[in-house]
Amino acid sequence: MASITIRNGRPEDSGQIFHFIRELAIYEKALDEVTTDEALLRDALFGDTPRAYPLICELDGQPVGFAIYFYNFSTWLGKYGIFLEDLYVSPEYRGHGAGKALLQYLARKAVDEGCGRFEWNVLDWNEPSIRFYEACGAVPMSEWVGYRLHGPALEQFAAG
Amino acid sequence: MASITIRNGRPEDSGQIFHFIRELAIYEKALDEVTTDEALLRDALFGDTPRAYPLICELDGQPVGFAIYFYNFSTWLGKYGIFLEDLYVSPEYRGHGAGKALLQYLARKAVDEGCGRFEWNVLDWNEPSIRFYEACGAVPMSEWVGYRLHGPALEQFAAG
Repeated sequence: MASITIRNGRPEDSGQIFHFIRELAIYEKALDEVTTDEALLRDALFGDTPRAYPLICELDGQPVGFAIYFYNFSTWLGKYGIFLEDLYVSPEYRGHGAGKALLQYLARKAVDEGCGRFEWNVLDWNEPSIRFYEACGAVPMSEWVGYRLHGPALEQFAAG
Repeated sequence: MASITIRNGRPEDSGQIFHFIRELAIYEKALDEVTTDEALLRDALFGDTPRAYPLICELDGQPVGFAIYFYNFSTWLGKYGIFLEDLYVSPEYRGHGAGKALLQYLARKAVDEGCGRFEWNVLDWNEPSIRFYEACGAVPMSEWVGYRLHGPALEQFAAG
């Protein structure tokens, strides 16, 4: 049986993480929205004030997937939570439990650190992922809609 | 005309912040979900490793509203963003631009700090807020659904 290991990302993983991000963007039909590169990722994730944290999943010592998480906050609970920004396993290495291992690693981290919640977003057409998440016990927060200000609209609103 | 000031929250605001959180929870029909208290909030927001930050909005020197934000991360951009967890203005002080001032303060912060995005969630039945946000130039991320693991389901999944 293949051996799965989860470890914290290191600066020298930046190229691998960028590769995974591009693969994920292709799956999500959003490659044109990827404007980052290896150097930007390295600066953001391993610079002076990291606020998001990568995990690398290895199958028999080979990186096959990654996750990036950060801490969110619930005012109702007065506690931090873990938010999973991205989770990805290369298609050719699926079926060995790598995705579940990454999710479970973060669930344990949430419990160990006294976080009240473990959360993430999923595209509403991504049926395989939705089935997987619901099988893990996660519930949809269907009443909530995300809003985003970015690009020229953000600059314009900020300028008042 | 009333003078609006936005300032960073301080430990001695914890009681006021707790009061606002309860008022907001009543509006969102979720008071039974508020399990925090003043001491927990103080520890989380003003302890050794704060990861979420409160803002206080004052109208003529009187606290009338608050916001709490944290930093999220976009892998597509390789940049941090600002996520607005809560925004609230007491009903008796609405109509003076306090809500917009809080939102604009954070939009400016996002631009100043080179953040790619400024984001938040809204309840899908909260029509007045949705109209306000769209008037500010924000766009709904309707394709995304939030998933949450918490309580016994989180503990069970974490235990494997």
